[in-house]
Amino acid sequence: MKIGKQTHRSSAISSSNPETILVRGRDLCGELLGHIGFTDHVWLLVTGTLPSAGQRAVLDATLVAIAEHGLVPSVQASRMTLAAAPEALQGAVAAGILGCGSVILGAAESAGRLLAEVVAGSAGSTLEASAERVVRQHRDAKKPVPGYGHPLHKGHDPRVERLFEIAAGVGLAGQHIAAAQAVARVLPELTGKPLAMNVSVGIPAVLLDAGYPLLALKGVPILARTASLVAHLLEEQSRPIGFTLSHAAASAISYDGEAPEGFVPGDH
Amino acid sequence: MKIGKQTHRSSAISSSNPETILVRGRDLCGELLGHIGFTDHVWLLVTGTLPSAGQRAVLDATLVAIAEHGLVPSVQASRMTLAAAPEALQGAVAAGILGCGSVILGAAESAGRLLAEVVAGSAGSTLEASAERVVRQHRDAKKPVPGYGHPLHKGHDPRVERLFEIAAGVGLAGQHIAAAQAVARVLPELTGKPLAMNVSVGIPAVLLDAGYPLLALKGVPILARTASLVAHLLEEQSRPIGFTLSHAAASAISYDGEAPEGFVPGDH
Amino acid sequence: MKIGKQTHRSSAISSSNPETILVRGRDLCGELLGHIGFTDHVWLLVTGTLPSAGQRAVLDATLVAIAEHGLVPSVQASRMTLAAAPEALQGAVAAGILGCGSVILGAAESAGRLLAEVVAGSAGSTLEASAERVVRQHRDAKKPVPGYGHPLHKGHDPRVERLFEIAAGVGLAGQHIAAAQAVARVLPELTGKPLAMNVSVGIPAVLLDAGYPLLALKGVPILARTASLVAHLLEEQSRPIGFTLSHAAASAISYDGEAPEGFVPGDH
Amino acid sequence: MKIGKQTHRSSAISSSNPETILVRGRDLCGELLGHIGFTDHVWLLVTGTLPSAGQRAVLDATLVAIAEHGLVPSVQASRMTLAAAPEALQGAVAAGILGCGSVILGAAESAGRLLAEVVAGSAGSTLEASAERVVRQHRDAKKPVPGYGHPLHKGHDPRVERLFEIAAGVGLAGQHIAAAQAVARVLPELTGKPLAMNVSVGIPAVLLDAGYPLLALKGVPILARTASLVAHLLEEQSRPIGFTLSHAAASAISYDGEAPEGFVPGDH
Repeated sequence: MKIGKQTHRSSAISSSNPETILVRGRDLCGELLGHIGFTDHVWLLVTGTLPSAGQRAVLDATLVAIAEHGLVPSVQASRMTLAAAPEALQGAVAAGILGCGSVILGAAESAGRLLAEVVAGSAGSTLEASAERVVRQHRDAKKPVPGYGHPLHKGHDPRVERLFEIAAGVGLAGQHIAAAQAVARVLPELTGKPLAMNVSVGIPAVLLDAGYPLLALKGVPILARTASLVAHLLEEQSRPIGFTLSHAAASAISYDGEAPEGFVPGDH
Repeated sequence: MKIGKQTHRSSAISSSNPETILVRGRDLCGELLGHIGFTDHVWLLVTGTLPSAGQRAVLDATLVAIAEHGLVPSVQASRMTLAAAPEALQGAVAAGILGCGSVILGAAESAGRLLAEVVAGSAGSTLEASAERVVRQHRDAKKPVPGYGHPLHKGHDPRVERLFEIAAGVGLAGQHIAAAQAVARVLPELTGKPLAMNVSVGIPAVLLDAGYPLLALKGVPILARTASLVAHLLEEQSRPIGFTLSHAAASAISYDGEAPEGFVPGDH
Repeated sequence: MKIGKQTHRSSAISSSNPETILVRGRDLCGELLGHIGFTDHVWLLVTGTLPSAGQRAVLDATLVAIAEHGLVPSVQASRMTLAAAPEALQGAVAAGILGCGSVILGAAESAGRLLAEVVAGSAGSTLEASAERVVRQHRDAKKPVPGYGHPLHKGHDPRVERLFEIAAGVGLAGQHIAAAQAVARVLPELTGKPLAMNVSVGIPAVLLDAGYPLLALKGVPILARTASLVAHLLEEQSRPIGFTLSHAAASAISYDGEAPEGFVPGDH
Repeated sequence: MKIGKQTHRSSAISSSNPETILVRGRDLCGELLGHIGFTDHVWLLVTGTLPSAGQRAVLDATLVAIAEHGLVPSVQASRMTLAAAPEALQGAVAAGILGCGSVILGAAESAGRLLAEVVAGSAGSTLEASAERVVRQHRDAKKPVPGYGHPLHKGHDPRVERLFEIAAGVGLAGQHIAAAQAVARVLPELTGKPLAMNVSVGIPAVLLDAGYPLLALKGVPILARTASLVAHLLEEQSRPIGFTLSHAAASAISYDGEAPEGFVPGDH
């Protein structure tokens, strides 16, 4: 069915013939395999060019930072799915990735938009003033400010300062990191509570400063989390906890709908 | 609901408190971030220990080799899904990953099992004899031999020899590579057609020789493909082809069910 | 991890013990099984009460209307996924459902919000005036008006008038249907093109008039499409076209990235 | 890429032009909408013909029986996913469906294969003898016998006898129900434990006797569960428990990996 007005009929990512596979214009087997690491390849795939050493260091740091944080909802969904459907590891990974949404993990993208807005709005003004304007707009529209506050790391998220150190160490700290810090400074007064930067604003701050594209930001937590899911699914195969997780979760919830007199729920 | 007899109530992958995040026993911010690359982290997450330089080189090579090969079914499903549901990049990635199954991409796992079986069966015999037995068993059970033959790379898959070169270069070429080659030698006679090794046997061959666990093999093409999907979904946002792909595909299929006299299908 | 401030610890949908399964307070085996149809059960699950005959007729009609419309993107993604991963029918269904997004199928929800807004805004005014205001707001915000226009059914979508007839026949035609028609009347003048109602506004119009909840609207196309996917996946098992679809789609797209001199793409 | 040898280039499910939508050869708007219920439509889509009243009753009963059973793993995965990604209801439904695998829900298909095997093997013998042979083969191959035993409904699953009653009531009880009962009779002696029929053998028994196709069996629990997921996701929007479930689950699991001296895990 002809939906929309798509006039594009080409792609610039890859081509091949029986002898050669081109990725972003380069011969996969001759130029890339054995010459670059996976992180370089991710950058090349996404942007079309190989990263500088500094860009690679920043992308590596964000991927390492966000890959794993214990039995979070996406990991639980994934392990329960493998327990129920062990024939399809890809289904369990997909179930976990589906939880990289606007509230968890995917917040990296909305936080990235926030930073870009603060930076854009600082022309002819200051980052501080722009940060204040943008945060006020969020609060007026009753939208949360993405990337600030964390249920466990309340005082500060240790990953954020480390990411900023790494970016500074390779000379790639710029306006987006400064914007993230400016927002952190104006937040307490505007919201009445101290909300520390969390990893979901740390990641877009360093990636945007390094030149990584805004519209692919969400791909970073998704890719990193995929690695973690593979590790958890390997553990699930030898030391299964998928149904134990589910049993404990169900036990925490009671039924408050109607029931016939004398009905006693079973132990689920 | 208590399903199965799960007695495990622990996990060894990660723990944390407000100040510290442990991954595989190491302090994420102090020991890992800025000190290791993402490929090291993948190995650490999956196996519990950091890789040697050779192991990292082999894992890098497999991830680079399998990430991207053009508009394959998983990429098409993913781009169509983003076109229909642009609000959820994670859904489009998940749709693509769901196509990493036993026929495509996921064949790395079944080929890995084949190689492990050939190696195990060669004790007190030769790899060649073991390969012949295992292939005969597959053919008797009318099961395909996974990892051999490719629709485009008919003569040979250029990625395979490059992977083997890289493994040899870091001193990690071993029995599983030899098993893959032994199967390739016995196949023509047993099947009547020359079936070259493809990347789905090349990947498990070098990974198993490097000490990567069999039950996490499928995670490698899934992780690599996720990177490629992110690149395609970024392109889809600026140069959309999702509905163009769908229109071209639908146009290739005719309707052969019943229809009232005079019914003329529309142009979809 | 304690995310958000969730204080709820109960659910009102189902409970059970070894002898009895309660669904929405009713004994599944004694009161429901054999006494009600699946459509009644869907209404009961979603709303907590059994539907009237008219409500059932309307829900039936919407489910029948939207289930199937040929090789649309969600069906293609699903069939390609089964071809690649035949071991997991549930994965192929999931891949199809992931394409029920804001642009296709899921538009029923955004169109439902539009209608609710038009109805709410008509108090003390007319539906026509309210429709004009709401459409102008959409155009000022450069947002599309969901539920109007169709790539194939340009003049009119035959499903819409049939749905309205059925709703009227059971006495459940009300303000939301009238709102949908009011929007259709004001659109040509405001947009300069005649945009007929499509099924994605017809469905919420009749369902909201019948008392079905707005926040579960998206569930109707998702449920209906699941039935269609099961049918396509059964056909895919006996008459596979998944890879044929993919090959035709890939052939429609050319590579326009860089390439070494003399590189000739293969036939994919 | 040309994968496999797909020579099919047609589909028999649906066609359309601007005025008419055909589903299985029938005019959707003229013949189906308003004339048949959703359950009829499911049967039509899957088999190509409309069901008899008895077939409809059986399909209705199976869909009602399996739709809902509380906070099972698939429902939990779905609610957690919506909590993390509220922008994509379709993603949360997909995450739930991915848990319809070989161990839970999807067991309907493997149980159906078992019944078909018992029936086929009874020619020239008895169902009892055939059941004994088939169960022995499963036990020799160390494969579980799908559809028998239930963690909650230990003595008997109340849904099964009700399904059999309904099938008998419409005159559609046949060989597959008898086969399910024969397996139940021989199991205690062969396995040493009384394993009652559960709903996952009850469903294929009545559906196969009613003429529903074996290869679409898994679609029945998937379709039914989709309805239940929609209800749970509506509740999740007004009374969220997704993160509560996740917190309770995580609290049940301890960390048993390495840790630096003095490390104290936080409250997750």
